[in-house]
Amino acid sequence: VTVTDITERELIERISKRLPPAPKWMLVGLGDDAAVVEPERNRVEVLTVDAIVEGVHFDRAFVPPDAIGHRALAVNLSDIAAMGAAPRLALLSMALPAALPLDAFDQMVEGFVNLAGRYRVHVAGGNLTRSTGPLMIDVTLLGTVKRRQALVRSGAKPGDEIFVSGAVGAATAGLQMLQAGAPVPDAASACVAKYLRPEPRVRLGTLLARNRAASACMDTSDGLADAVHQMAASSGVGAVIDAAALPIDTAACQWFAARQLDPVAEALAGGDDYELVAAIRPRMSRRFRQLAQSAGVQVTCVGRCTEDRSVLLRLGHGETATERPLERPAFRHFQ
Amino acid sequence: VTVTDITERELIERISKRLPPAPKWMLVGLGDDAAVVEPERNRVEVLTVDAIVEGVHFDRAFVPPDAIGHRALAVNLSDIAAMGAAPRLALLSMALPAALPLDAFDQMVEGFVNLAGRYRVHVAGGNLTRSTGPLMIDVTLLGTVKRRQALVRSGAKPGDEIFVSGAVGAATAGLQMLQAGAPVPDAASACVAKYLRPEPRVRLGTLLARNRAASACMDTSDGLADAVHQMAASSGVGAVIDAAALPIDTAACQWFAARQLDPVAEALAGGDDYELVAAIRPRMSRRFRQLAQSAGVQVTCVGRCTEDRSVLLRLGHGETATERPLERPAFRHFQ
Repeated sequence: VTVTDITERELIERISKRLPPAPKWMLVGLGDDAAVVEPERNRVEVLTVDAIVEGVHFDRAFVPPDAIGHRALAVNLSDIAAMGAAPRLALLSMALPAALPLDAFDQMVEGFVNLAGRYRVHVAGGNLTRSTGPLMIDVTLLGTVKRRQALVRSGAKPGDEIFVSGAVGAATAGLQMLQAGAPVPDAASACVAKYLRPEPRVRLGTLLARNRAASACMDTSDGLADAVHQMAASSGVGAVIDAAALPIDTAACQWFAARQLDPVAEALAGGDDYELVAAIRPRMSRRFRQLAQSAGVQVTCVGRCTEDRSVLLRLGHGETATERPLERPAFRHFQ
Repeated sequence: VTVTDITERELIERISKRLPPAPKWMLVGLGDDAAVVEPERNRVEVLTVDAIVEGVHFDRAFVPPDAIGHRALAVNLSDIAAMGAAPRLALLSMALPAALPLDAFDQMVEGFVNLAGRYRVHVAGGNLTRSTGPLMIDVTLLGTVKRRQALVRSGAKPGDEIFVSGAVGAATAGLQMLQAGAPVPDAASACVAKYLRPEPRVRLGTLLARNRAASACMDTSDGLADAVHQMAASSGVGAVIDAAALPIDTAACQWFAARQLDPVAEALAGGDDYELVAAIRPRMSRRFRQLAQSAGVQVTCVGRCTEDRSVLLRLGHGETATERPLERPAFRHFQ
């Protein structure tokens, strides 16, 4: 049984029956030309859209349907988290190949709705269409934050410490493991899990915003090196990242090393971790660590912002340390 | 030169350089993890998302790139208009085949941005990704309306007159002309234009909302018959549509007749017109006509809501008139 064996209306009902009751602020929900919502008082709105496309962002051969649904929302939650905002509502637009099994559709919706429920994101609308090619999910997410608390990329100052949440490189290693197709040892299963079902840092982001603890913030969707480059450029500062300080996931590190890949390079270039990178004023450093602890998130200082605009990677320690430009998975051609 | 010959950043710049300056309420625009906007005071928000997919909603063989960009926004503007809201901001998500010529990309953006400019819709963000298959454009649109003025589908009452804006059947005829591939006579060029670059009824929708002139409203994106059925079902009323009253586009009518197609059936079933259907209390009928006139839109009373829940089509006049169920391009399988 595929999605084309039933009507569009029935597909929509399979989504809506999985949704929790609409909150009071949703004045008109699914089923009209558009949704009508009451804005949240004394808040500004944060809006983002991100699409995941089969064959570009995921491979149905090894990404199960529920993980596809989860990822479609998670990548957007991560953007909202990086702004310090609390997510509020989502619009879910799907383009489905005719051969998509109805079971897979249900599991995809399940993965999406479960993650939405955990962050109290309400589905305000959506769109279903057939795709003549790949499966695509396009999610628009709206969050809210107090006006002066939104975390932007451009606020970093020379002297700020650069922190990253969680461990880096795990998702890239997880993807490589899935692509290799070999059985994944127990010790490495967290890497695969992190690739398949990334956990956006929503709690940390909102805590940083409320406490004005970060001078700049962004997520590492395109890798840590890219995030540092973008934050530095937006803020008009440079940065030095300390290779030895990078919190590289242990199982990922072993995986890279066993394949003669440089763990530092992989962890810096690899995307999909959906961690937060934040620039923190030295006097806020202790407060920042406390907030991260209360959010249950490990954070690591990996470098510092500099006056000089160059973005460098420091290798080695003390007197023998050397610095070279932080490689950026360069201005890639559109892909 | 195709879109893959340049970087994603350069593609984004080709969009942003075409955009007017951001309004004051857009606190953070393109270039951060998400946009930050100040909600409009004393308004509720209306949100919709709609995707158009190559091979499903348009054929690149006869829909020029600027029309693709125009349509992607127009279908969403029509949904917002049907709610009586004023459009405010859009998020533009595109999945591009690698072989898409850069020229076509530019023209697509041009078509989108031109229509956006005419309705003062500001692009607050977006997403670009490669597609391994068809070209897809997914647009999220946000509009605003006063809380008690939003036009819903469910407010029609027995006795309400059913009006439709503009002429019906033109877009369907235009699509058929394009598909036939033959040269289109001058007299019929408006049909093709209406299919390629539909003009959403934004002004009419907002006027109806502000004057509380309609008891229910929706757009005819899936055809007039479908709209009447949906409005009746949402409102818990029936309807009788008078075939003789239908404002069928003249050139379309001739086109259908020349092909032994029933103009009434085609005009009722055909989609893509993006007109508004509204239920109007008899005492508001005159006011409604005045408002339509001030919006420069022809409106026609095509029937009436009834107590009895059946949705009927009346054929013929006076004593010899007959009524039969209004055919609905039935609950189609997902397509």
